[in-house]
Amino acid sequence: MILRKKTRKFHIGTVGIGGDSQITVQSMTNTDTQNVDETVDQIHRLEAAGCDIVRVAVLDADAATAIRAIQDRIKIPLIADIHFDYRLAIKAMEYGADGIRINPGNLGGEEKTALVVEAAKQHNVPIRVGVNSGSIEKDLLKQYGYPTPDNSSALIESALRNVRLVEKYGHDKIKISIKSADVLTTINSYRQLAKKTDYPLHLGVTEAGGLIAGTVKSSVALGILLSQGIGDTFRISLTRDPVEEVRVGFELLRSLKIRQRGPELISCPTCGRTRIDLFGLAEEVEKFVQTMESPLKIAVMGCVVNGPGEAKQADIGVAGGNGIGIIFKKGEIWKKVKEDELMDIFMAELKLMELESLRDK
Amino acid sequence: MILRKKTRKFHIGTVGIGGDSQITVQSMTNTDTQNVDETVDQIHRLEAAGCDIVRVAVLDADAATAIRAIQDRIKIPLIADIHFDYRLAIKAMEYGADGIRINPGNLGGEEKTALVVEAAKQHNVPIRVGVNSGSIEKDLLKQYGYPTPDNSSALIESALRNVRLVEKYGHDKIKISIKSADVLTTINSYRQLAKKTDYPLHLGVTEAGGLIAGTVKSSVALGILLSQGIGDTFRISLTRDPVEEVRVGFELLRSLKIRQRGPELISCPTCGRTRIDLFGLAEEVEKFVQTMESPLKIAVMGCVVNGPGEAKQADIGVAGGNGIGIIFKKGEIWKKVKEDELMDIFMAELKLMELESLRDK
Repeated sequence: MILRKKTRKFHIGTVGIGGDSQITVQSMTNTDTQNVDETVDQIHRLEAAGCDIVRVAVLDADAATAIRAIQDRIKIPLIADIHFDYRLAIKAMEYGADGIRINPGNLGGEEKTALVVEAAKQHNVPIRVGVNSGSIEKDLLKQYGYPTPDNSSALIESALRNVRLVEKYGHDKIKISIKSADVLTTINSYRQLAKKTDYPLHLGVTEAGGLIAGTVKSSVALGILLSQGIGDTFRISLTRDPVEEVRVGFELLRSLKIRQRGPELISCPTCGRTRIDLFGLAEEVEKFVQTMESPLKIAVMGCVVNGPGEAKQADIGVAGGNGIGIIFKKGEIWKKVKEDELMDIFMAELKLMELESLRDK
Repeated sequence: MILRKKTRKFHIGTVGIGGDSQITVQSMTNTDTQNVDETVDQIHRLEAAGCDIVRVAVLDADAATAIRAIQDRIKIPLIADIHFDYRLAIKAMEYGADGIRINPGNLGGEEKTALVVEAAKQHNVPIRVGVNSGSIEKDLLKQYGYPTPDNSSALIESALRNVRLVEKYGHDKIKISIKSADVLTTINSYRQLAKKTDYPLHLGVTEAGGLIAGTVKSSVALGILLSQGIGDTFRISLTRDPVEEVRVGFELLRSLKIRQRGPELISCPTCGRTRIDLFGLAEEVEKFVQTMESPLKIAVMGCVVNGPGEAKQADIGVAGGNGIGIIFKKGEIWKKVKEDELMDIFMAELKLMELESLRDK
């Protein structure tokens, strides 16, 4: 359906980025990176949620040296996020970081950036050049003004200038991000950037807000970009448990049929027609669904108006009303049961289908 | 920024739909419509959240007659949602419904639909023709097959057929919805429909799922459509308290700069650099922000890396770290305070700015 823009390809650890690689979901820990146990625990939870690549903040030398101990205990590639101190970037790579994220503009000048790029080449470590509205160089702000929704020139020029700096010292495993807290600026910046470069693009909306505001802003911006074939990897930024970032990320990919992970749950909004405890049933099913691996399509419907029609698309669906529950499979009524037995029978059948689906693998 | 597709204009109660009217946010009660007190209470909560138009399910004659009592106690227009029984549609209009939503395909034939349309003309009540994947006529399914992401012809033809039926009996205050649980089908259906009609379009993704899945699917589908100028009114369907639907709706409109309601909160995702209780502060601010009316831009940042740069855009912003808190106003440091005083001083100043902003009105 979606024609993806062709970009260069390289690997971060074992995970492909750009080209024909699948679009990857990233997240970032919010633990103190020096605290190896806590950081590893959080990364294990991120791995379980499907996170492809994790980033950790490297604030000091102890955080940089902790990377080796963390990596020994995790499966996914690790990216070190560095600001201001070029020595931390070099140390992070010495201690095994699979990638680094820097903003060359704040590393203290070209000479220091050159040392970082030299080390990255030596360790074969890709670099993300990440600029945001807050890091644009003064001369560019003077020339272009602060980025607005219809003028993203300063952001793009800042990113490209820093990319050229990395290229100048002979490294070309580069991905680029240009993040803004503004959805329209984000969309316009990446659209223009995609025309000017074939390096892989890392998408994101920065400071997106809480769970709901952040999910809406990221879904709109990244949904529009991904639907136009732009973007090779992304992080959904939420002021929340990073596991939620990964969950939202996969919902986004699923909604555009780009990547599927686990089952899909559809449930109707309740209305005055609802004749069943839909919230309770949907919550119970949603909880179980998060432990499932098979890509079943599951419907939980509150009434007979939309229930049967929509449940046609579902591998298994349930609709209720007036004391009677109906369980559907692929559009056919599989069982009519009393409403007070409905949840037990439905959940038992769901578990059976999951087991059968896994056995068939 | 966004060039909106020109549609016809009419009013539902006092609220304009289509043409140059603002894009409206709808929701639907999930109470028993016969229970006037509960229904009115929920509608009052929806009104407080900014809901423009509310829909109630009309399942029987008692629900239809309850409409008058409900309307006497609410401010926003009320739409009656009717399936199967054409007499309920007529009764709902007799009892004062400002609009009706029907699916002519399930009213029991052309003669009965004609009676509903006749009554709608007489009461000057607009009709939403709402079809969904589950309600497509058998002959259209046979001709076009079940709608897939790249073949929405059956949905569109079903909608247009039913619109022509309403037109045939002399009514033209029509809005159209074609809902699917599939994001790509939704996008393609409305895109094609927008080329074939100039009636206002009511957007939505049906059976979108729980809070997160539903918010992502609706944001992607409606975000893409609205950014292309398609859509005059919408409902975000969530299996949740309908107040959440309205909240997500306004976040969506805000993200595309289409409509703004109340302040905007930006907050950074936490990371290992976070040196402040950001979740606590963000939650406290978020709670207060929901009671605010002024369109202030408020930033809550966890560290000095992105904080100062991003807070430039904010009317008031806070960043913390290592025992010290900084409060910004329009890019300038307004106050440096001890971290344990930060929340109190920030919230007090926020309240003051809100009061000043309201006084200036």
